[in-house]
Amino acid sequence: MAAAARPLNPAERLDWLRLIRSENVGPVTFYQLLQHYGSAAAALEALPEAARRGGRGRSLRICSRAEAERELVTLDKVGAHLLAWGEPDYPQALAAVEDAPPLISVKGRVEVLRRRAVAVVGARNASTNGKRLARDIAADLGQRGLVVVSGLARGIDAAAHQGALATGTVAVIAGGIDVIYPEENRALHEAIADQGVLVAELPVGTVPQARHFPRRNRIISGISLGVLVVEAALRSGSLITARFALEQGREVFAIPGSPLDPRCRGTNDLIRRGATLAEGAEDVISALEGPLAGRPAAINQPLVTAPITNGNLSEKGLDQATARVLEALGPSPVPVDELVRQCQLSPAIVVTILLDLELAGRLERHAGNQVTLI
Amino acid sequence: MAAAARPLNPAERLDWLRLIRSENVGPVTFYQLLQHYGSAAAALEALPEAARRGGRGRSLRICSRAEAERELVTLDKVGAHLLAWGEPDYPQALAAVEDAPPLISVKGRVEVLRRRAVAVVGARNASTNGKRLARDIAADLGQRGLVVVSGLARGIDAAAHQGALATGTVAVIAGGIDVIYPEENRALHEAIADQGVLVAELPVGTVPQARHFPRRNRIISGISLGVLVVEAALRSGSLITARFALEQGREVFAIPGSPLDPRCRGTNDLIRRGATLAEGAEDVISALEGPLAGRPAAINQPLVTAPITNGNLSEKGLDQATARVLEALGPSPVPVDELVRQCQLSPAIVVTILLDLELAGRLERHAGNQVTLI
Repeated sequence: MAAAARPLNPAERLDWLRLIRSENVGPVTFYQLLQHYGSAAAALEALPEAARRGGRGRSLRICSRAEAERELVTLDKVGAHLLAWGEPDYPQALAAVEDAPPLISVKGRVEVLRRRAVAVVGARNASTNGKRLARDIAADLGQRGLVVVSGLARGIDAAAHQGALATGTVAVIAGGIDVIYPEENRALHEAIADQGVLVAELPVGTVPQARHFPRRNRIISGISLGVLVVEAALRSGSLITARFALEQGREVFAIPGSPLDPRCRGTNDLIRRGATLAEGAEDVISALEGPLAGRPAAINQPLVTAPITNGNLSEKGLDQATARVLEALGPSPVPVDELVRQCQLSPAIVVTILLDLELAGRLERHAGNQVTLI
Repeated sequence: MAAAARPLNPAERLDWLRLIRSENVGPVTFYQLLQHYGSAAAALEALPEAARRGGRGRSLRICSRAEAERELVTLDKVGAHLLAWGEPDYPQALAAVEDAPPLISVKGRVEVLRRRAVAVVGARNASTNGKRLARDIAADLGQRGLVVVSGLARGIDAAAHQGALATGTVAVIAGGIDVIYPEENRALHEAIADQGVLVAELPVGTVPQARHFPRRNRIISGISLGVLVVEAALRSGSLITARFALEQGREVFAIPGSPLDPRCRGTNDLIRRGATLAEGAEDVISALEGPLAGRPAAINQPLVTAPITNGNLSEKGLDQATARVLEALGPSPVPVDELVRQCQLSPAIVVTILLDLELAGRLERHAGNQVTLI
């Protein structure tokens, strides 16, 4: 990635914030825009025209300078600040994820984010035994030098944070960094802000909604070398975190349980499908000490390897190329590589066209560099 | 194997019984003697001289005709009879095992032994939930047409037999066919003799001793296409059955359980080491309907592919060859193939020498056609 790997200056930080808060700009698009236009400032400049080229009728909502400045002021007021992708405190393992948030709000002991971490997640309606296991294993992992990451939900998440409070814990929350949810975890939220670190992707003040939780889960697994699931029903949120972990190349661990307990169906199913059975911290540690030990740092690949230009395509040429790409796209995911072959266009041009379509709100990206038309 | 695949006549049956009840003759030796000498009668004739050649000082205890006849009479009295390897009712899957018992005592509905079977085994000090699972899963397996095999021990074994009593169950017992153990399972023992089938390898009247149980376990797994372990502590007998199942190429299933319950340590450990996690009968059935479905019938291989002769070796030549084999043997297991290469003798001669040494009580056989000097 062209971006960062050094602290941003205040002007750059503001531009990054404006860009990621603008309409139709998700993390993947953000990094591609940065690479395509050279800087967030240049991308902000180019956005309206790109969206128009992509077929956007009404104008794109771009985050204003004033809006972004207000967010920075509020963050400061609540004792939080932003970390940008590639800055020294930005979690190294998370940086290796394709759709890592370009900016995260953080509050607390940010230095914790530099250490090796493992996620411990699970059911909200956990059993007493499940919570006890989560707390004990989190404490053991902490004793062994690992940071424990979780989602500050009721049940397993809360127990995991409690177990690792003294040794280092990261709570990735679905809403804004200052929004306490659920209310019963207020004391824990405050304790983590004090002794551990809180992380949020959405703007300060955002009240979390159902759709925010899965996106949050990719950050939990992204920060972590592995994800341990302690009690989970079938089709539960913890399994989404496990799926993200697999997509991100992280290890998945699950605690087994009796088939008579529905709260163990999800974990047993994970084991059946290849997750590592874990009975305690030792099982997690021994797996992470193996070939995985240095992985996330090593897979820190740029998203696109060559600089992207429009080539020498005229506006008319670009319109014709766009038509060809639109024809090849549909509701089923198509790998971008295949699109390039099929349309007989240069990769640079296809990437440009996809960016324009995405900014126009007509394209959706999927795992494995695949795209669909909306 | 040269032997059987047809019912034995009464004289042959008596000779088989005498041979397998003679000193230093285990199942593997039994089949090799049969092949080497052409019949059990000829082998009985040759035993004393072979043992002497192998270096035996005092004479070998050979089971007398009267002794064998007494066993047959007693079996008849208790309502049991013998099945020989390869006879129509002898379990097909068991026949494929290298050290399958040449003769088993059976009592009850022997036709049950012709059907596809699965073992359900586990801890004697099982939990209420564990016993409930074993009984329910055994009943489900029975409903789906599978016979349930177990060891008639307290706890899981008894529950499994109870669950499958109506649909077909096989109890493989460690002592003689008429010896009830443990006493608390008397009613179940009798119910199985009535509605299912009892199987025993040791002579009628034998009181089971600790060392008999592991040998018995190889028959439980041998009769079965797969072994399901329901609750087992680490280093428990059920894990021995699972190990036999793996050696015999059978599927191993285990029910997961909480890490907080020591009765689940063994099953969790099996899963960690590759056993299939099972939450119910469906998991077992779907695995057995896969590539395994017809396996035991297909792996029914003869133990030695070519007829064995002494070649034209003189007695002196055989003594020299024996010395060479003895030199190559030690307390660590050596594959017979390697012995043949190392000693530069024909396979036929090495097999003869090993038989002689075994009859002399100087050789022990191990899994994978390996041998050690005692």
